[in-house]
Amino acid sequence: MTTLKKFPPIGLLVFSLAMTLTLSVYAADSTEKSTAKAAPIYPELLANALKSDKAYALLESLTTEVGPRMAGTPGDALGVAWAVKAFKALGYDKTYTEAVTYPVWERGVETGAVLSPFPQKLQLTALGGSIGTGKKGVQGDVVEFTDYAELQAAPESAVNGKIAYISNRMTRSRDGSGYGKAVIARSAGASAAAKKGAIALLIRSIGTDSTSRSPHTGIMRYDNTPTRIPAAALSNIDADLLSNMLKRGQPVRIQLRLDARIRKADYTGANVIGEITGALKPDEIVVIGAHLDSWDLGTGALDDGAGVVITMAAGALIKQDAIASKKPLKRTLRVIAFANEEQGLYGGNQYAKTHADTLLSTHIIAAESDFGAGRIYQFNTKLPEDQLHRLAPLHAVFAGLGIAAGNNLARGGPDLTAMAALGVPMAELAQDGTKYFDIHHTAEDTLDKVVPEELKQNVAAYALFARFFTTDW
Amino acid sequence: MTTLKKFPPIGLLVFSLAMTLTLSVYAADSTEKSTAKAAPIYPELLANALKSDKAYALLESLTTEVGPRMAGTPGDALGVAWAVKAFKALGYDKTYTEAVTYPVWERGVETGAVLSPFPQKLQLTALGGSIGTGKKGVQGDVVEFTDYAELQAAPESAVNGKIAYISNRMTRSRDGSGYGKAVIARSAGASAAAKKGAIALLIRSIGTDSTSRSPHTGIMRYDNTPTRIPAAALSNIDADLLSNMLKRGQPVRIQLRLDARIRKADYTGANVIGEITGALKPDEIVVIGAHLDSWDLGTGALDDGAGVVITMAAGALIKQDAIASKKPLKRTLRVIAFANEEQGLYGGNQYAKTHADTLLSTHIIAAESDFGAGRIYQFNTKLPEDQLHRLAPLHAVFAGLGIAAGNNLARGGPDLTAMAALGVPMAELAQDGTKYFDIHHTAEDTLDKVVPEELKQNVAAYALFARFFTTDW
Repeated sequence: MTTLKKFPPIGLLVFSLAMTLTLSVYAADSTEKSTAKAAPIYPELLANALKSDKAYALLESLTTEVGPRMAGTPGDALGVAWAVKAFKALGYDKTYTEAVTYPVWERGVETGAVLSPFPQKLQLTALGGSIGTGKKGVQGDVVEFTDYAELQAAPESAVNGKIAYISNRMTRSRDGSGYGKAVIARSAGASAAAKKGAIALLIRSIGTDSTSRSPHTGIMRYDNTPTRIPAAALSNIDADLLSNMLKRGQPVRIQLRLDARIRKADYTGANVIGEITGALKPDEIVVIGAHLDSWDLGTGALDDGAGVVITMAAGALIKQDAIASKKPLKRTLRVIAFANEEQGLYGGNQYAKTHADTLLSTHIIAAESDFGAGRIYQFNTKLPEDQLHRLAPLHAVFAGLGIAAGNNLARGGPDLTAMAALGVPMAELAQDGTKYFDIHHTAEDTLDKVVPEELKQNVAAYALFARFFTTDW
Repeated sequence: MTTLKKFPPIGLLVFSLAMTLTLSVYAADSTEKSTAKAAPIYPELLANALKSDKAYALLESLTTEVGPRMAGTPGDALGVAWAVKAFKALGYDKTYTEAVTYPVWERGVETGAVLSPFPQKLQLTALGGSIGTGKKGVQGDVVEFTDYAELQAAPESAVNGKIAYISNRMTRSRDGSGYGKAVIARSAGASAAAKKGAIALLIRSIGTDSTSRSPHTGIMRYDNTPTRIPAAALSNIDADLLSNMLKRGQPVRIQLRLDARIRKADYTGANVIGEITGALKPDEIVVIGAHLDSWDLGTGALDDGAGVVITMAAGALIKQDAIASKKPLKRTLRVIAFANEEQGLYGGNQYAKTHADTLLSTHIIAAESDFGAGRIYQFNTKLPEDQLHRLAPLHAVFAGLGIAAGNNLARGGPDLTAMAALGVPMAELAQDGTKYFDIHHTAEDTLDKVVPEELKQNVAAYALFARFFTTDW
């Protein structure tokens, strides 16, 4: 791992949209100690973005007219059609799709209940990719592990023939870092339990809500353990209930039925791409994007409808700005709505593969919005160190949006993983995810969770970012 | 309706538990202008109640070991057995049951979906008492009415053959007064719609949450309209979604399946009664109580597990206080856990019938806790006006708990309706219900919604109330 310097913190810059201020621009290169004054970049674009209802209206449309967009379901195709139509309606110069093929996981009916000693229904949901239980379901006594490590350390005799239950809690934080620590129970728990003879896996939902009956789904993977067992997440309240039952020391017997399955035939969906063509260097590309697919339980408003509409609206506002200011984009802006991120980054990986030959020579920078609709608080990059001083005008305008200059360790976003690995420069507009994991991957991921003012700040930031890199970089 | 005077507001009384204060007692009778000073009543009972975890522990037990207690379900019988055991364990002098018979409504599977133009699943739940749709379900176009009155005013041609949808929103308030205004859509909407030829009724949930996918159930009634149609509530988020679809002006077609039904045979459950016997006048009765049944979606923590454990724990603390202080109760305290309130006040009505002959001669006063576990903020009575001045010591100690003297219009509580109608004196310990209707009758009615400190304040208030009326009145 290379050691990358962090940006020095920028000073507190007070920026008023209403006034044309001359700003003391941040001197990114500490060797320069520049105190040059410059007008803020793209004030009209910024003002228009902050007052535009475009993104919210798009999100209302996507969640109402399409709703859930799980990979391979009818909602997947409806989502693609919606995105094509939206790019066109927004005045993008080019709209096209690129095929992406992936397996299809189906959820089906899912039920759970404690049979004894305290019969009660349980609210749970199958983990994405899980096999089903068969129509008869699975019955067994539960053995609780406080986390994945405890399950791994347990003797086979403690697990064999039982339903393994991992009850670790995800911790809340602005950057969502609790997710990575907790999610191994979801992603790897089933095979770890199967190795020791478990007949099913239950986990506490990987989420931060503590008063909800809505379980959190999300992808899981089977490793090469020959036995595959079904896996489901309890809502956090149902997890509390089960843990409270287990504390009483009697065997707790559970019945679980999941009709989940993988379809025999793969499905071919699409990345949907809208472009605003660069006037001077049309073959140089700045990518912003998000993933179009969602889980099936909610309407995918935050994950990742928000990202789709933030980046779509940002592009549309840039196009308008280019016309109004008679200052065309130098490079091409490519807004990508990626297919099937949730079940394995299929859209992002396919994009990197399809464009492999020209990726490094044409792609200037890429950023993905995939962390809800919370306010952006930090701007990170992955650029050559000697180029960082050129970001000063962008940092200045970001400061006015409450966005601090961050580090040079950006990974770009899930769908950009393959591109980043190949060396494409990256940016991250880091969002406040304090509340994101309360509703992430649940039925509660719906339009009402989006705060319009926060969404506007996101659109403004993406618009300024993409305008700067397509035109001024 | 008789005109009853309101209590004059009492002055701000600062009361400290930690100190033995001499209080300026409120002069209830304005003709007296008394400024007599007196020691606060039952300081040890108050202190013990405010530090007791008994009620919370009982509620944890009830929600974990029994869970939902819908009338006539296995949970009903488990709840009765739990209450009998709990009264005995708490040291009540007498524990017994009185039979109550009622019909049994079963929920079964329930699903809903928009078929066109924007296919999506809908989260909904059958209203209690609704008939089912049959296995094939019901399909139809939706016609929206902003409230019950608009449905009533609509021409038959607008409703005939359609699914009528009433979308009125319940307003939030401390006293829950928005419920009474909104609930007619739920209670009477189906027959009103059926009269005009509707094939089903949908309503926006009668609840105050605006970010939840959990629909609110609750009882509905068919009037003598010959046609009965199935009725269900959408979650408030799904109601928003449906209204947003309808705004687009295209026909919105819905598929609804409810397997709900009324069982052929009635069920005999029970009121569960615990008594602490009065030493001097054992035949004079003070009643406190709550209803033991709940709806089936949550664990009935707030509705009305909280009321059950508040009154049970209050009685147990009074018994302990009587022993410790060597000051026995003069009258008998009767704590009643009523059967099947939710589907028609069966337990309360049966109690009034069973005890009709002696009700007025033996029942001194009655109060029910059935509004969650929020802090009590006001004490209302229904007593002869010339007796009100005798409440002064109780008002004084209540002031220290943040409970203001209220009016003399108390109705006592749902299960006391029949007793109140017969003239039994009533009291109301009015709870802050600001958040109550966010989770009332939903899957979210679970233990985590109860704030332990608020529950303790309730226990303290009921303990003081019942101690005062059994011993000092």
